[in-house]
Amino acid sequence: MTETTDTTPGWFSREELDSVRDRLPILYVNAVPVRTDDTGAVRSVGLLLRVDQEGTISRALVSGRVLYHERIRDALLRHLEKDLGPVALPRVPVSPQPFTIAEYFPTPGVTSFHDPRQHAVSLAYVVPVAGDCQPRQDALDLVWFTPEEAAGPDVQQEMTGGQGVLLRQALAHVGQLP
Amino acid sequence: MTETTDTTPGWFSREELDSVRDRLPILYVNAVPVRTDDTGAVRSVGLLLRVDQEGTISRALVSGRVLYHERIRDALLRHLEKDLGPVALPRVPVSPQPFTIAEYFPTPGVTSFHDPRQHAVSLAYVVPVAGDCQPRQDALDLVWFTPEEAAGPDVQQEMTGGQGVLLRQALAHVGQLP
Amino acid sequence: MTETTDTTPGWFSREELDSVRDRLPILYVNAVPVRTDDTGAVRSVGLLLRVDQEGTISRALVSGRVLYHERIRDALLRHLEKDLGPVALPRVPVSPQPFTIAEYFPTPGVTSFHDPRQHAVSLAYVVPVAGDCQPRQDALDLVWFTPEEAAGPDVQQEMTGGQGVLLRQALAHVGQLP
Amino acid sequence: MTETTDTTPGWFSREELDSVRDRLPILYVNAVPVRTDDTGAVRSVGLLLRVDQEGTISRALVSGRVLYHERIRDALLRHLEKDLGPVALPRVPVSPQPFTIAEYFPTPGVTSFHDPRQHAVSLAYVVPVAGDCQPRQDALDLVWFTPEEAAGPDVQQEMTGGQGVLLRQALAHVGQLP
Repeated sequence: MTETTDTTPGWFSREELDSVRDRLPILYVNAVPVRTDDTGAVRSVGLLLRVDQEGTISRALVSGRVLYHERIRDALLRHLEKDLGPVALPRVPVSPQPFTIAEYFPTPGVTSFHDPRQHAVSLAYVVPVAGDCQPRQDALDLVWFTPEEAAGPDVQQEMTGGQGVLLRQALAHVGQLP
Repeated sequence: MTETTDTTPGWFSREELDSVRDRLPILYVNAVPVRTDDTGAVRSVGLLLRVDQEGTISRALVSGRVLYHERIRDALLRHLEKDLGPVALPRVPVSPQPFTIAEYFPTPGVTSFHDPRQHAVSLAYVVPVAGDCQPRQDALDLVWFTPEEAAGPDVQQEMTGGQGVLLRQALAHVGQLP
Repeated sequence: MTETTDTTPGWFSREELDSVRDRLPILYVNAVPVRTDDTGAVRSVGLLLRVDQEGTISRALVSGRVLYHERIRDALLRHLEKDLGPVALPRVPVSPQPFTIAEYFPTPGVTSFHDPRQHAVSLAYVVPVAGDCQPRQDALDLVWFTPEEAAGPDVQQEMTGGQGVLLRQALAHVGQLP
Repeated sequence: MTETTDTTPGWFSREELDSVRDRLPILYVNAVPVRTDDTGAVRSVGLLLRVDQEGTISRALVSGRVLYHERIRDALLRHLEKDLGPVALPRVPVSPQPFTIAEYFPTPGVTSFHDPRQHAVSLAYVVPVAGDCQPRQDALDLVWFTPEEAAGPDVQQEMTGGQGVLLRQALAHVGQLP
């Protein structure tokens, strides 16, 4: 799962977290940012663009860890602001019921999801975004795709760790799977 | 189910609809209007106030029929505008998955829901409302209640046909059942 | 939507139903029969095989109308027994919440779903089936497919009216979208 | 959250786990065991009976930690077998989508759920149980209640940490909230 490090002080040092990651499932949230039309139907999906040190392009959903004593909806807002900027105006769902649970295993093939660093269990939500998105931190850009493009082979092969599957699960949930 | 008549021309006359209502389940939508805080948590629930010819007060959810060739989300928007006015700014959910199905039977006791006029099957959604609400048609007022008030005995006994149950199901779904 | 006629007496004649179908959305259920392993994970999906008068093969989900004064779960059981036989041992979900609503329009392109005969609104459920399936009525056979096969091009092109999309939405819901 | 200790070797010692519990949300599952009638409608809910050292009676849902490299559905099965015995024949849901997320905070009042030992985030599922239940470990008994009894004041006041709320959320989800 492409994730920026949580640098908030007072929780875990990097070394401590690495040690825990070998022995406990780590709680995550995944958000699929969407634009809707006036009737609430999803018209496009926002994906973060990242380029690694070898210059390989990848596209990713908003994702990150839930911290100690942090509510799910506060974690969602924090990661949405981290990845989309302060004026994205995300509308976090009223219900805590996620559309699915993505179980990222360090061993490939146990589920559709894989994270070599850890066993991460992610609560996944679709989040309508009404404002301007200005990607921050390690993302180069946020690009909007139609449901057809997002589920198509070009975008899907640029997504890693099973996030292409999660994106298509989100499209299925909102009734926009091509 | 407290409902205002659909007067849109070109579908059914009142007589024809009455005849069909004896022999076919009629498709409805129910919307639970809510106000949320900045994190998306539900803070209050909006209920329509109605007074019948005997002066009996009742409180009701937004509800109404789905018309021929009308999408669910368009029916939701139409009934929300009919009951809350044109500047309520409702945010119809991105997913067609309702939080429950309320089956109103003409015979009391088959389910929690009862409608003496018909067998109505209603897709139920929680709808955040961001704008000003100006109740129209046969509603006297729209009153906002905290989740505690909405689930309390005073409000519950003013709701009919099982809508008190449906309201508490909505509160359970958004994690606000007292 | 491939559907066998409801011949239960006392509801509508064929002519009356045809007349109503032009002016009211008709309530349906769709069931996706699945086999699971010991942990409840879906291992295969059952599709009905039909051959029309021109000899064209099509594959279909269990589907049918909800009758007047019939509960959703009774309609599900009736259509499952009609299509899978009396010893299929279907496990109708405990919750009335469907995984999605499929809106079949007589006009193609309004949604992903199309039914030239009518505007049908279908509540869709995944139903584990534990017993023996013996297709009846107009189905030639019931064939079980892995999630990969079911979502693959061969099966998908044999499904009509958007049921291929609905099948993939079901696979997404159960975490088995390839 | 009443929970028996995970004694599986190779994960965490009790001391290590206590240390982590102060700094990371811990992933849990909650299961609400139910009996259904032939149509899948919930007829009763099973609650574990516990007596603490002071002789205080409490009633609890099935609950427990998700271990490193364990799938959600395997954790559900493990805790169901731990609490209900080996022949309970639980039917773990086909979809990973929980009916809600219960966030147990060490600080009372942040959410409806409270666990003085830790910040636990629990994925909650309703699980039909078809076989014989023989409570094991620290539970004295498993008692079945009708939905009316389960939501009533007697049972509700015997539940702790907010599990009475979670139980009523489960009843709401299956359409059986009194």
